[in-house]
Amino acid sequence: MAKKSFPLSKVYTLLEPGPVVLLTTAGDQHPNIMAMSWHTMLEFTPPLVGCVIGDRSLSFRLLTASNECVINIPTVEIAEKVVGCGNTSGAKIDKFTAFGLTPKPAKKVGAPLIAECYANLECRVVDTEMVARYGFFVLEVLKGWIDPAVQEPRTIHHRGCGSFMVAGETIRLKSKMQ
Amino acid sequence: MAKKSFPLSKVYTLLEPGPVVLLTTAGDQHPNIMAMSWHTMLEFTPPLVGCVIGDRSLSFRLLTASNECVINIPTVEIAEKVVGCGNTSGAKIDKFTAFGLTPKPAKKVGAPLIAECYANLECRVVDTEMVARYGFFVLEVLKGWIDPAVQEPRTIHHRGCGSFMVAGETIRLKSKMQ
Repeated sequence: MAKKSFPLSKVYTLLEPGPVVLLTTAGDQHPNIMAMSWHTMLEFTPPLVGCVIGDRSLSFRLLTASNECVINIPTVEIAEKVVGCGNTSGAKIDKFTAFGLTPKPAKKVGAPLIAECYANLECRVVDTEMVARYGFFVLEVLKGWIDPAVQEPRTIHHRGCGSFMVAGETIRLKSKMQ
Repeated sequence: MAKKSFPLSKVYTLLEPGPVVLLTTAGDQHPNIMAMSWHTMLEFTPPLVGCVIGDRSLSFRLLTASNECVINIPTVEIAEKVVGCGNTSGAKIDKFTAFGLTPKPAKKVGAPLIAECYANLECRVVDTEMVARYGFFVLEVLKGWIDPAVQEPRTIHHRGCGSFMVAGETIRLKSKMQ
């Protein structure tokens, strides 16, 4: 399915529900993939995302070197691959090959998009002030992509120790919240 | 239902899935309640949570004054009350009274627990370095409470503009992730 541009002003609607995401970074030998749940929106426009990346991980080193990454949002259909990425280190294997995921070139950054994810957000690191203390990077989303066929994505949400909540029904309430 | 102590080392299992939470603060006239989706775990133990609070809100002023709050996690049964809290300002109304929510005394902080929420996390502000830039407070969870009758909480997850995803089924995968 060909992806379409996704408006930057609506990026928060993808991340605010709290899905597990796959962070991709460009690498020396091959690009890497990291499963990540510790992220939050920090600003609507330009969309800023804060996320925690452990300083002993390969992704930490690659992100620090390139200042670029892609946040890819998977759904339950590829949950096994997501867990595979979370259980392994890119220092030892090429995760794209190992888990049968497809890298696609991004438009604004060197890190690849994951084709099998329904949404992809190309990001640049814009603030490293809190990296030493918490491994907390501030990213600006430069470009968004979405699979227009996916209307109610069955995202997965980590409850810890291999337990994941799968996104259920959508309800609509008269909210004035953005 | 009487709540039980919840182990601090497991706090991340409650917040990592990304639910909308209700942040309570102690006030001059009455305590306040704010609906919040922009939060992330920053550390397992002691559990640290980062969250964004707009600097024009009453909660911002009360949290800055007291350095204490409670993160209360609601489920879909009280979704209308959550939206009510999100649509209104505590500068004009007492939200506990307006939405029929019940304040209960916390053990370690001055802010109240919301009885109708299945989990409550008593917090203290421990880092305000990023408040000026992003309204981003770092909280340490001092004490956790849980309703032991709620096994698979139907939390709500904001998709923006009055649309909420309700937590669906739980799946278990062979993950080595904490």
